[in-house]
Amino acid sequence: MKTLEVSLAERSYPIYIGQNLLSQSQLLQKHIKAKEVLIVTNETIAPLYLKQLEKSLTGYRYQSVILPDGEAFKNLDVMNQIFDALLKSRFSRQVTLIALGGGVIGDMAGFAAACYQRGVPFIQIPTTLLSQVDSSVGGKTAVNHALGKNMIGAFYQPQCVLADTNTLNTLEDRQLSSGLAEVIKYGLINDAIFFEWLEKNISALKNRDPAALAYAIERSCHDKADLVAKDETEKGVRALLNLGHTFGHAIETGMGYGNWLHGEAIAVGMLMAADLSARQGWIEPSDVKRIRDLFEIAGLPVTGPNDMGPEQYLSLMSVDKKVQNGVIRLILMKGIGQAVITDDYDRNKLQETLSQFQA
Amino acid sequence: MKTLEVSLAERSYPIYIGQNLLSQSQLLQKHIKAKEVLIVTNETIAPLYLKQLEKSLTGYRYQSVILPDGEAFKNLDVMNQIFDALLKSRFSRQVTLIALGGGVIGDMAGFAAACYQRGVPFIQIPTTLLSQVDSSVGGKTAVNHALGKNMIGAFYQPQCVLADTNTLNTLEDRQLSSGLAEVIKYGLINDAIFFEWLEKNISALKNRDPAALAYAIERSCHDKADLVAKDETEKGVRALLNLGHTFGHAIETGMGYGNWLHGEAIAVGMLMAADLSARQGWIEPSDVKRIRDLFEIAGLPVTGPNDMGPEQYLSLMSVDKKVQNGVIRLILMKGIGQAVITDDYDRNKLQETLSQFQA
Repeated sequence: MKTLEVSLAERSYPIYIGQNLLSQSQLLQKHIKAKEVLIVTNETIAPLYLKQLEKSLTGYRYQSVILPDGEAFKNLDVMNQIFDALLKSRFSRQVTLIALGGGVIGDMAGFAAACYQRGVPFIQIPTTLLSQVDSSVGGKTAVNHALGKNMIGAFYQPQCVLADTNTLNTLEDRQLSSGLAEVIKYGLINDAIFFEWLEKNISALKNRDPAALAYAIERSCHDKADLVAKDETEKGVRALLNLGHTFGHAIETGMGYGNWLHGEAIAVGMLMAADLSARQGWIEPSDVKRIRDLFEIAGLPVTGPNDMGPEQYLSLMSVDKKVQNGVIRLILMKGIGQAVITDDYDRNKLQETLSQFQA
Repeated sequence: MKTLEVSLAERSYPIYIGQNLLSQSQLLQKHIKAKEVLIVTNETIAPLYLKQLEKSLTGYRYQSVILPDGEAFKNLDVMNQIFDALLKSRFSRQVTLIALGGGVIGDMAGFAAACYQRGVPFIQIPTTLLSQVDSSVGGKTAVNHALGKNMIGAFYQPQCVLADTNTLNTLEDRQLSSGLAEVIKYGLINDAIFFEWLEKNISALKNRDPAALAYAIERSCHDKADLVAKDETEKGVRALLNLGHTFGHAIETGMGYGNWLHGEAIAVGMLMAADLSARQGWIEPSDVKRIRDLFEIAGLPVTGPNDMGPEQYLSLMSVDKKVQNGVIRLILMKGIGQAVITDDYDRNKLQETLSQFQA
């Protein structure tokens, strides 16, 4: 087992990465302050891992709430089911929420923990590659609104994160690829050496080689933790983590939540960012090709949905959280491993990129 | 105009108290960072004060959302109307929310500000006596859940508070009395001298004497700010502010939100706390009488609803945020101006108090 510390002063917490962590009850229990627990999970994960987790909670008063599975259910209405469960069971301000599932469950359970009685502790047990390398670090919690993704939420840190790599064995191929998109993102932002490692090891990752996966998860969490520690509430450098997300969120919202997986949407978004960066003359066409090739081997899409044109993108992108004074700021690249946040790009070239990616 | 500083490190902010502050555009504008504003108000307040406020925002891009009036509407569904308005108008993370109304509007707008894009600035303009002396200080925001009051919320501080005493001229008598309940509370908690002042000046307050009101508001905010500065997130001494609230919330929830005004419910709650304290031998029956007399002159109820018995109280009180390990902790009194938080009280005497107050 590897342990990574996320350094955020009194809100610091450890991420444990390894096999079979769900059954290590002592690891879990030392992060639960009172003996009250509500487990939040979904219909897909519950049959696979809920019993194993409950066994680790012997002696605790616990309840479980099982939500429908998918991004389409990440909204205030479904989150209210968590509050219903908490209040029906009369859980106090000492209750610990445990999120057992992917990013949707982590985001909703984390946001519910931030709000219930104005804040109770929570623990993340991410069960997808995407959530292990993304939602594990940074304390971003949220639900979607019909008019924008992740528009309602809180910055809220967990007590600890348990990334049990065994849970990846039951992950669908499409979900694994989606997670690889976020892994590749860290290479593109500021870790060119990791990007090269990924080019060499992408097949091992796709074949779920445990050592390769554990390394990729640890390095991704490490890279992300570095940026988050510098800028917890995203006033500056943390925004680089949104590489591909302004475009990607537009795809997710435009196509209806859940039809495109998050990693699929941001893969296309990162390619769009690369394409625009090349049009600006900041990176080489050969860099764009390297990125496209890696995504293709990872099983990710490299063109956008064919029913979304530039106008729809621009309309959806204008509600992005990085918009300032009406200007859409973008994360672009000055090289592989050199992402920048900027509003200094040519609007016509952005139009060209958006047209180019209409499949 | 008086200015009171609430000291919370980098979250410190000023409370301005005085006449006609709504029209002082410079006062308001210096606390608005970007030129985007969403005003949140209700159907009662909008016809009275919205135009005046909008006039102070000349040159800003502003929108208003007008919610239904009353505690019955303080829930996630109605709060979602604020998010709808923010997103339909494409307001960015730089938007400032202004809460123009009583405690319900302040609580919902404040919580919406805490959650929108994970946190945007907001300004409180409380228009009731209750909200001027209560929600102005402390940063508690929340909505109700069918199973418990203020169960979903956040600690979130405003940029500033404008308590314009002119707005009290249009307040209904019953609302004024409700506010006086919170004012009296500060005397009971830890300010016996203020309690004596209130005994002498209660008629002036009921007659809306501007000088008496301004003094009572300032002293209440000052007393509350002292406790909040010591304990921002209510781990200890701040809980004293809940004097009367465990009983009072049970009445509000049990009778249906909005049927009893908050101040009415906590007035009865404070009397219950006094009654139980006297049964414990901690205060004199004559103290209880002084408190009851003051409430009666203030126009507040001194018995509970006749269709609520001890069992219903205990059931509703068991979801209170102060419950620890299943034990209901109460704020009781060791004297007027000497409130204490304790679970060391006789359960049979609590039953007697609850029976006693069934009208």
